[in-house]
Amino acid sequence: MTRPRAYLAGPEVFLADGAAIIAAKNDLALAYGFLPNGIAEDDLDPTGLSPFEFGHRISLANEKAMRASELIIANLTPFRGISADIGTAFELGFMCALGRAAYGYTNTLRPYFERLRDDYYRGAITQAADGVTRGPDGMMVEDHEMIDNLMLDGGIETLGGILIRRQVGPDRLWSDLSAFEDCLRAAAVRFGLAVPV
Amino acid sequence: MTRPRAYLAGPEVFLADGAAIIAAKNDLALAYGFLPNGIAEDDLDPTGLSPFEFGHRISLANEKAMRASELIIANLTPFRGISADIGTAFELGFMCALGRAAYGYTNTLRPYFERLRDDYYRGAITQAADGVTRGPDGMMVEDHEMIDNLMLDGGIETLGGILIRRQVGPDRLWSDLSAFEDCLRAAAVRFGLAVPV
Repeated sequence: MTRPRAYLAGPEVFLADGAAIIAAKNDLALAYGFLPNGIAEDDLDPTGLSPFEFGHRISLANEKAMRASELIIANLTPFRGISADIGTAFELGFMCALGRAAYGYTNTLRPYFERLRDDYYRGAITQAADGVTRGPDGMMVEDHEMIDNLMLDGGIETLGGILIRRQVGPDRLWSDLSAFEDCLRAAAVRFGLAVPV
Repeated sequence: MTRPRAYLAGPEVFLADGAAIIAAKNDLALAYGFLPNGIAEDDLDPTGLSPFEFGHRISLANEKAMRASELIIANLTPFRGISADIGTAFELGFMCALGRAAYGYTNTLRPYFERLRDDYYRGAITQAADGVTRGPDGMMVEDHEMIDNLMLDGGIETLGGILIRRQVGPDRLWSDLSAFEDCLRAAAVRFGLAVPV
């Protein structure tokens, strides 16, 4: 049986220990019967390319890998701010448009509303005259009881995927792969693969 | 001739004066020959729905509007942090996967690298032993001379779209529609529409 190709999306490439975490994620995906699909940026040669051209080359390779994948597992843990990595959000949208199986996880239990209220607005939100909760800049503080913007949670929901939330210690925010493994387990059942005990 | 449907993506819905800005954008799109496509959240009835269900309903309506659109014009001005609105990034990825014409704009000339270095890391970046520029948290500080994550700039580039950058005053960050109009003008040429003088 051919292994389903899984596109593993997330900001791990930026981490100091990203290579080790990506390798561990690839190994786990293999253990669950999937072929981890993605690019190794080291395989792309920047020689003679401008920074923009090289970045575009990576984008093209990632889009090609996504089109060749049956599912996506997106690490939506907040990255450099109150939301998920924006490149990962683009990729989740890309795979949702293709109707591929979509799974996501986040290593925090704090919903988007809490991060927006407490981390971004430092609690300074109020109910405005129109009945809408707003920040001091007048912007709406939305609360859909979701982990992030409604397009992300909603896109996964529409495709019957699963969104896993786990709370891990701050020092394990990126290295803890329990929630990632939860996604693999759910995806393995859906794809009729033997789940490791 | 049927007007091409344009999906106008951006975080305007969250703004205090968002309704007026969205109306102005719709009017401009019409003036350039496009049918602005999107949903009015007011048309969706939250009665009897949980916050999650209502958010999901909005997501479904947006996905339907995107599939019915020939192009996307995405407002990628940084929102609630150093990157574009994450919902808009999802939608740009969605439309790139469908191969629709993709246009983007941002009302700042500061590239992602500058915002990451100065706004997020407060200048505290250094070249690490491996030759890679990193923040104090060890994360890679990438510089592709792009306005945001390479998937966004790259996706638009792949589809032959245009990404407009303009610098506007801080008080006009969301209300200035010059860059948006630049996108409309470029898209009108591409779709063979008569461009207003």
